[in-house]
Amino acid sequence: MEFTQERTEDGVTRRSFELTVAGQIVPAVIWAPAGARGPRPLVLMGHGGSQHKKTPTLSARARQYARRLGYATLAIDAPGHGDRISREEAVTLAREVGARVRGEAPAGFTSDRLRQMGERTRAAVPEWNAALEAALSFDFVGQGPPIGYWGVSMGTAIGVPFVAQQPRITAAVFGLGGLREGDAAFEAAARAIRIPIEFVFQWDDAVAPRERGVALFEAFGSREKSMHVNPAGHMDIPDFEAASWERFFARHLGPVEASASLHAAAG
Amino acid sequence: MEFTQERTEDGVTRRSFELTVAGQIVPAVIWAPAGARGPRPLVLMGHGGSQHKKTPTLSARARQYARRLGYATLAIDAPGHGDRISREEAVTLAREVGARVRGEAPAGFTSDRLRQMGERTRAAVPEWNAALEAALSFDFVGQGPPIGYWGVSMGTAIGVPFVAQQPRITAAVFGLGGLREGDAAFEAAARAIRIPIEFVFQWDDAVAPRERGVALFEAFGSREKSMHVNPAGHMDIPDFEAASWERFFARHLGPVEASASLHAAAG
Repeated sequence: MEFTQERTEDGVTRRSFELTVAGQIVPAVIWAPAGARGPRPLVLMGHGGSQHKKTPTLSARARQYARRLGYATLAIDAPGHGDRISREEAVTLAREVGARVRGEAPAGFTSDRLRQMGERTRAAVPEWNAALEAALSFDFVGQGPPIGYWGVSMGTAIGVPFVAQQPRITAAVFGLGGLREGDAAFEAAARAIRIPIEFVFQWDDAVAPRERGVALFEAFGSREKSMHVNPAGHMDIPDFEAASWERFFARHLGPVEASASLHAAAG
Repeated sequence: MEFTQERTEDGVTRRSFELTVAGQIVPAVIWAPAGARGPRPLVLMGHGGSQHKKTPTLSARARQYARRLGYATLAIDAPGHGDRISREEAVTLAREVGARVRGEAPAGFTSDRLRQMGERTRAAVPEWNAALEAALSFDFVGQGPPIGYWGVSMGTAIGVPFVAQQPRITAAVFGLGGLREGDAAFEAAARAIRIPIEFVFQWDDAVAPRERGVALFEAFGSREKSMHVNPAGHMDIPDFEAASWERFFARHLGPVEASASLHAAAG
């Protein structure tokens, strides 16, 4: 795997690479502490609808995890997002998604949108699997690190089916999503998940109605699962939830040192 | 105010004292770092039904807040609890409450129980006010420290009306409770609360049905309020929620140093 770009800033190195999955080029990016070598926990971050792999909140979190926890973070552009579409298409997409999350356009799932999201998810799952395999070949990740997944909104719509079939992942943050009528595959995926979950939900979300969010929380097959409900809309997750996600991953993925010694002992 | 007992263990001093409120003797206890002087944040902790002011989980949290945050913690025996009843009465009470929280006895609110709880709350609120005033006279607390309240289950039944009328309190943890039909005063108190709230709730609680817990969360008048939902019953709050309460208080009440300099500047 060759890196197409490598850039170090404030003690964190961001490396870009590309995968080809089912004939599609999938742009990927991975952050790690500058000069990192040897195994460390890895967090996969799935961006939201109309966002991309280096969207500012995601980048900021990846840099923070590298600096404060020593972790690596992997992100890819979802189908129809980021570098996989033109700048003009991205602007149109941002406008459409923005109108839905602000409650200015209907957020219901027409059968067309449901089919489109199903197709996107079916494409995204093998892309995530391939990106994860690629990351495990990097010496600063190692082959068997503890792995977490973070993704809200579209990151949950894609993440739940992805995590359900990916046994390497041991803890996940989901949110801003719910069970959708007519999507039995999504519900089955939620029920198949057994790992610890932190599920963040906005009580006045224009795109994820309360009862559907609660139904998704109930569907997760995990023994350890926490639902954090806050007031206000889709874009209003309070900052203290981001702090909670960091502690959730620190608790479940552990420190870099322990992971490194584990690797040495196993080798 | 004279202390009836003073005991230092592992760097934390626990002092006992008594108040007389409306002809009733109210036993109180306050924890602080050993040798503490000068103002510091204060947490008031309301115990649960059948428990008492030094119940083990509460004591452990008070000691931890003293050691890790430098805080003081105040607790009192609720009416009909702790040193205010005989050992035999306490055993009977623990059996009755235990049967309800384990789902072995009906947990619904008969009009008799609702009246009894109303009376208990009406007695407890002035007792808490008096205990707080007493604590503010101690030199290791100071007269204007940041003040939090923690109480779940009965600690919420009493705590919501108490906090609603006590302007000194600036952050509160509630939980394991809900709106009760026929108790308009409790609902009005919840609506009057405007301070940041962390509300912990167990999804399979035999004594607090889901829809009532959600209704209480919705009733709080606070702009910042988080509901943390976890699976399982009344006694099964996960340990990571206790860690979350500590961070919640640390975030809202601040460090001891800042509080001390604030006091000096104001003085």
